[in-house]
Amino acid sequence: MTAAPHTENRVSPAVQCVRIDLAQQTYDILIGSNQLGDDASWKNLPRAGTAVIVSNDTVAPLYLAQLTQRLQPHYARVESVILPDGEAHKTWDSLNQIFDHLLASACDRKTVLFALGGGVIGDMTGFAAAVYMRGVPFVQVPTTLLAQVDSSVGGKTAINHPLGKNMIGAFYQPERVIADLDSLDTLPQRELSAGLAEVIKYGPIADADFLQWIEDNLDALLSRDKAALAYAVKRCCEIKAWVVGQDEREQGLRAILNFGHTFGHAIETGMGYGAWLHGEAVGCGMVMACDLSVRLGLMPPDFLPRMRRLIERAGLPVIGPKLGTDRYLELMRVDKKAESGEIRFVLIEALGRAVVRSAPDALVAEVIGSHCA
Amino acid sequence: MTAAPHTENRVSPAVQCVRIDLAQQTYDILIGSNQLGDDASWKNLPRAGTAVIVSNDTVAPLYLAQLTQRLQPHYARVESVILPDGEAHKTWDSLNQIFDHLLASACDRKTVLFALGGGVIGDMTGFAAAVYMRGVPFVQVPTTLLAQVDSSVGGKTAINHPLGKNMIGAFYQPERVIADLDSLDTLPQRELSAGLAEVIKYGPIADADFLQWIEDNLDALLSRDKAALAYAVKRCCEIKAWVVGQDEREQGLRAILNFGHTFGHAIETGMGYGAWLHGEAVGCGMVMACDLSVRLGLMPPDFLPRMRRLIERAGLPVIGPKLGTDRYLELMRVDKKAESGEIRFVLIEALGRAVVRSAPDALVAEVIGSHCA
Repeated sequence: MTAAPHTENRVSPAVQCVRIDLAQQTYDILIGSNQLGDDASWKNLPRAGTAVIVSNDTVAPLYLAQLTQRLQPHYARVESVILPDGEAHKTWDSLNQIFDHLLASACDRKTVLFALGGGVIGDMTGFAAAVYMRGVPFVQVPTTLLAQVDSSVGGKTAINHPLGKNMIGAFYQPERVIADLDSLDTLPQRELSAGLAEVIKYGPIADADFLQWIEDNLDALLSRDKAALAYAVKRCCEIKAWVVGQDEREQGLRAILNFGHTFGHAIETGMGYGAWLHGEAVGCGMVMACDLSVRLGLMPPDFLPRMRRLIERAGLPVIGPKLGTDRYLELMRVDKKAESGEIRFVLIEALGRAVVRSAPDALVAEVIGSHCA
Repeated sequence: MTAAPHTENRVSPAVQCVRIDLAQQTYDILIGSNQLGDDASWKNLPRAGTAVIVSNDTVAPLYLAQLTQRLQPHYARVESVILPDGEAHKTWDSLNQIFDHLLASACDRKTVLFALGGGVIGDMTGFAAAVYMRGVPFVQVPTTLLAQVDSSVGGKTAINHPLGKNMIGAFYQPERVIADLDSLDTLPQRELSAGLAEVIKYGPIADADFLQWIEDNLDALLSRDKAALAYAVKRCCEIKAWVVGQDEREQGLRAILNFGHTFGHAIETGMGYGAWLHGEAVGCGMVMACDLSVRLGLMPPDFLPRMRRLIERAGLPVIGPKLGTDRYLELMRVDKKAESGEIRFVLIEALGRAVVRSAPDALVAEVIGSHCA
């Protein structure tokens, strides 16, 4: 089943454009090399006196000067807020640093925020934009593969709470997403692998052909081949846009995007934010969700080794931490998909088709026992 | 100009109903005596396993038991979070107490929040509902006059930041508003007066006839006559719904609802949250905005004493605190209506018609000098 349509190329051979058309906002994702340096990327954004770039102390030394220079022709003031890097800092304290800066600089409600960094920066900046003065415009400049394929579409913004990941947030759409594939050149290999977890995800849940394509092109992706990356990012954004377009507020279908995330969030929360990268936890969580799909008889037994092999080849962990079965179950019960304490899993029922359902605790315990050392 | 239509009574002679029809949500405001005790008020709300009532330590001893009892037939669990009372507690810390409770009780994304209290509780509970798991349903049960006339319509939710009032928030609509006029019987006189400030506001900005009605019925309102209160609450909600319906996101017209608020917020922030009640600051701020309207030649000179007399009769302060002109101007420049550092005032240009515009600093300074002792 290849339900999500492929989009035609609207811009140029060098730049892919995926248009996201939602009830409240239409915006473009520009995907290509040298997007950051191309003046065309920055035209026709909302006009304002002030632009504020939010970044972290890893990404800012690499790209802040370049982005500042690009924005200066368009805004009288271009300022920046640099936060500490990492999931452990996706907190109210970091968010408040953004607000402190905005208010101390008397930034008005037309101020445009630019998220320069990975998923953590994107989620926090998006949430800050959603609630500062009840909403200011923002632009995503994702510099990690994970952020380019995952945070670009869907409008999910959030911070973590000590008791659960992404528990405080909003649905809020950017004005534009500028995904410069060159920024992936500076990405540590571990983070590239983490991004591949979200790429791989789109195969089993929505597009069997794409799964096959990933298996055939994984080496090119791992060596950062620009053509392979461009196709992967574009295809993921297309699939996600197709899913989100049918279910902006995650009432139903959209939950399939959380494949691997129920187990994955438990790993992340259980280990302390930042110990595992989000993509690593999702990769390992997908192995567990594949196993559960097999144990429930939804998929044939050879599906598990096929997926485990691919996830392992991508450089991702396939063995989870030993948190204990009870702790896993407890953590999964506060997952946002849970209802009345019943854990809801995203499972595969055919290649390219996912289903959201519960599973007997005993079977879940077997999965945890088999995959956590 | 009476632009906002009067609505027909849809429920019964004893209960007024104002239907709010917005792009994303349609809901009813029920206004009358014994609304809290009437089973009909609580029917057909969103179904969920858990209801969480958010209230404060002043209101909870009065009405929490009664509301809990009403909700128990509809929800398996009815829990409560009791916050300290007052504008000084409209903070992230209080908001986080709500999140802590929701997460510790494993409340899922269907959980319904009930705001039982005044404007502070309504604004915070609404904001908590807007961002908990990216949005859960909530119901307003306003127990102050100010909250009944002002927070019931418009979907503005927020918390304060040390550098500015209501700076962090969201537009988020309730499922229903249940305004029990009997709950005003326990309201301190000072809070009743504060609520009357927002009632008075609707006259000059939108309905000259209503201004006359308030002047004629102020004594009845001050003595808590239920028929007078019912009409005032209903008419304010109608006018606000008419304004908000044309401008949900405060791009233009809606700003007129901030009449008196530019000066008023400066008083509140400058004195420290909670020293002046919001309505007191708005009352005094209206006197200053009326004076500015006169000084700019928009209104005849007798408009100022007419409004000052009414505001004073309502038991509200008409002399502002002596913060110093520079401090007033500085505080007003971070107002959400300000653009590029230019303060935007809501002024009256005819009885029942407001305009948003800037004014020369020198004239604003004269107003501050004349009304702040």
